Amino acid sequence: MTRPTGHMLVAGTGVLGKGAGIRAVDPATGEEMEPEFGHGTPADVDSACAAAEKAFPTYRTAPRNERATLLDRIADNIDALDETLVERAHSESGLPKARLTGEVGRTTGQLRMFASLVRQGDLEAPRVDPSPAADGSGSRPDIRQRRIPLGPVAVFGASNFPLAFSVAGGDTASALAAGCPVVVKAHDAHPGTCELVARAVTRAVTELDMPAGTFSMLFGSGPELGTALVTDPRIQAVGFTGSRSGGLALLAAAQSRPRPIPVFAEMSSTNPVFLLPNALAERAGDIATGFVGSLTSGAGQFCTNPGLLVAVDGPELREFLSAAADSVAASEPSTMLTPDIAHAYADRLGELAAHPSVEELARGTATDRPNTCRPALLATDAGEFLADESLHQEVFGACSLVVRCRDAEQLREVARNLEGQLTATVHAATADHPEAAALLPLLERCAGRVLFDGWPTGVQVGHAMVHGGPFPATSDSRGTSVGTLAVERFLRPVAYQDVPEALLPGSIATGNPEQLWRRVDGEPGRH
Amino acid sequence: MTRPTGHMLVAGTGVLGKGAGIRAVDPATGEEMEPEFGHGTPADVDSACAAAEKAFPTYRTAPRNERATLLDRIADNIDALDETLVERAHSESGLPKARLTGEVGRTTGQLRMFASLVRQGDLEAPRVDPSPAADGSGSRPDIRQRRIPLGPVAVFGASNFPLAFSVAGGDTASALAAGCPVVVKAHDAHPGTCELVARAVTRAVTELDMPAGTFSMLFGSGPELGTALVTDPRIQAVGFTGSRSGGLALLAAAQSRPRPIPVFAEMSSTNPVFLLPNALAERAGDIATGFVGSLTSGAGQFCTNPGLLVAVDGPELREFLSAAADSVAASEPSTMLTPDIAHAYADRLGELAAHPSVEELARGTATDRPNTCRPALLATDAGEFLADESLHQEVFGACSLVVRCRDAEQLREVARNLEGQLTATVHAATADHPEAAALLPLLERCAGRVLFDGWPTGVQVGHAMVHGGPFPATSDSRGTSVGTLAVERFLRPVAYQDVPEALLPGSIATGNPEQLWRRVDGEPGRH
Repeated sequence: MTRPTGHMLVAGTGVLGKGAGIRAVDPATGEEMEPEFGHGTPADVDSACAAAEKAFPTYRTAPRNERATLLDRIADNIDALDETLVERAHSESGLPKARLTGEVGRTTGQLRMFASLVRQGDLEAPRVDPSPAADGSGSRPDIRQRRIPLGPVAVFGASNFPLAFSVAGGDTASALAAGCPVVVKAHDAHPGTCELVARAVTRAVTELDMPAGTFSMLFGSGPELGTALVTDPRIQAVGFTGSRSGGLALLAAAQSRPRPIPVFAEMSSTNPVFLLPNALAERAGDIATGFVGSLTSGAGQFCTNPGLLVAVDGPELREFLSAAADSVAASEPSTMLTPDIAHAYADRLGELAAHPSVEELARGTATDRPNTCRPALLATDAGEFLADESLHQEVFGACSLVVRCRDAEQLREVARNLEGQLTATVHAATADHPEAAALLPLLERCAGRVLFDGWPTGVQVGHAMVHGGPFPATSDSRGTSVGTLAVERFLRPVAYQDVPEALLPGSIATGNPEQLWRRVDGEPGRH
Repeated sequence: MTRPTGHMLVAGTGVLGKGAGIRAVDPATGEEMEPEFGHGTPADVDSACAAAEKAFPTYRTAPRNERATLLDRIADNIDALDETLVERAHSESGLPKARLTGEVGRTTGQLRMFASLVRQGDLEAPRVDPSPAADGSGSRPDIRQRRIPLGPVAVFGASNFPLAFSVAGGDTASALAAGCPVVVKAHDAHPGTCELVARAVTRAVTELDMPAGTFSMLFGSGPELGTALVTDPRIQAVGFTGSRSGGLALLAAAQSRPRPIPVFAEMSSTNPVFLLPNALAERAGDIATGFVGSLTSGAGQFCTNPGLLVAVDGPELREFLSAAADSVAASEPSTMLTPDIAHAYADRLGELAAHPSVEELARGTATDRPNTCRPALLATDAGEFLADESLHQEVFGACSLVVRCRDAEQLREVARNLEGQLTATVHAATADHPEAAALLPLLERCAGRVLFDGWPTGVQVGHAMVHGGPFPATSDSRGTSVGTLAVERFLRPVAYQDVPEALLPGSIATGNPEQLWRRVDGEPGRH
């Protein structure tokens, strides 16, 4: 089955939704696409959550290798969709095929990375405090600890990564790796892509005889289905990537439950870039080229888009701005993900450009093509920026605001007054290092990732990555939605006191039969 | 200074509160004690938080050894208070001196354990993903990760551990270890004890030339001061131990902030104990003795008090209940922490005992002494228990409800329908292990600690302990307030991408100069 048929996937079964249909729009043409997708009903939410709850005891206790094999198989099944998937995602999102081909690789790469992590056994983080006190001062109980999965997880994908942050993206992969069944709310912007991927996941679950409720995917526009999902008592955690308003609504719903649950919502970030004077003096042109490339890539529709440039005013900055403005003015408009996003970009940009303290430095070329993003470079003064929080808001798209500072002290003042961010970037020559050293602690406090001499777009998937940050970048700065640390959002520690050896989980059994890294009396080792 | 003077401690300075005073009551006599403590004002909250915020950049970047030395010094200064502290805590809480002497040791032991953890450097959890791709497929950025402290932490101590869960208890120790300044709201039930300990902490901060705002302690009864503290924009996390209503109020306040912050509130648990038939057949008398000891210890005023016993009805259970009832009936009433707690115990117990499906099996002896707890053993049937959530509520004090089950299946049904718990206990003979194996996964799901053949009171402090659990045991099952894992509540990961070597923190520098355990490309080791 390589064409979407308009079905949701509920615990292995294709189910047609009800009510006014959802149709993808090809943003490059403005035309609606086939097929029509119905909305999931409360009964569908109930079925998916009941199946997830039923699957949980079996899925979480399946041998690690089986859970890893499931993740690998999902990756294989997605790979097998090949051009069909890229074509559909391209039509639904307007994103270039080359980018989407890369995103397929990123998605399957993530799944396989989590498969490795599951096989390694690290995610249980076993700890053993053996019974006899180290100082011989008498008996104490035998305490051991491992992490177990929270339970069924609701995942809300993003519009801007129809694969890597969607049905089988990082949230789903990390939740499945943790041992949590997943119920995805598909994104309306790319429903056909969602169905194709959901079928690939469902096939893997079926092929490997995993419990059917390990995975479901539902459709529904408007807040009803999402709210029903997040407030279902069987759902134990939420992963969300999207807008600030959407994330806050789900957070409020989760907190209003009789038994509140954790929500990791990745929401909003302007990703400030600090351009230090010696870096600008040395390579203003190169920095401008890199900046505009990062700004306009994917029509600026990245969570990590560099939406704020901060620098001390002076000839170096002016040289940079001149080059950047030329480059922005010459940039081609590109298709945005959806008509709504294109309208929102135009509206928000219009408001910001009309702000009395904001000056427009450059706009990209215009076009008659529908749903396009004209890149924009705006500027304001640090004093105005510090005085008006409306200037701190993200504009989703290829828009960046330059904040001109009087001096290095004012630049640090801007750093101190930023909202929480996914990233903060510094461009610094060696001569700027003293200033960069003063800036770094301020940036650590506001961002989940600090980077030097590069651009925040392009989030490396690995063990050390953090794609998270203080509010409003995310709803919980202690998590990340990219990288192996992402599993920790869906795990919790349990202590086992004097549990008979025969009943102890293998990861914390005496003699370390699974040969895991463990902490024994706090000391890490393979013991 | 070894007598309390009625002062709050705001960033190193003794400050007198305002308004209607707070006085400790000796619950053994009902008499009010000297001195009077005023209430902190909004200006005091502001001063403490401003000082904490000012202290944070210095405190968090102090060499690890200095932070560890501060924790050790606090422990030394508390030890130096010696009998003065125990005497005052005894008068204010009614708890026996021997127990309080032990609690001093537990408190200073925790501080020293966190000092060791800080020296070890583990809490930064460093990760390094070196730049060249492992498969040689080209360049990728250099990504490193460490954890940094969240910022100033508000701590709300408990009434039932005037030392170990109070001013310098586990929340304060773990927050200071993480690198977070602390503002404590002192508990009204033991204000003098709070002041003595706060002075010991403040002296340590002063002696070691740490920033004064590293620690403050405020008084205030009623919700105003607590709400002001939790909603202060400089506070970045909350640690709370206390009642469900108190915890939920602070949680709501934290979530209503423009920038919500994490709250770890340890609130409510009935700590079910499952008595399996062969264990009862083998040693009903011993289990009864252990049970009543755990139930009545400290007048039952432990978060981990065994408030629920679950067993299959039959001759073994009846033998156990007969022994337990005799023991409860013979137990002496003991003084509760405060008049309010004693009244609440009597009220809640009265309600529960009057429930039409509840039978009273035994009450402890009566006394004319004020504010005492008469232990109580009640019973109901599992069918009634499953049908009425009011029977699931904690009664704070030495009260336990026996839930008689028809058979093993109904016992598991009870396990499946419990609220979140700090602990779940199983008493099992070898012949019970098949049933225990079926029960264990259900108990893992509802509790933070599962223990066998012992009693939940007496929480071992160590590396593997979890004192936490699903809601309503705590507000976030991913944390613990006891044991070294407690620091993780106050840390968040930050990624460093292509940060110049000269600017990298030592914990993630090339060559591992601090010789820490790190994950390099995911692999743990001292590399």
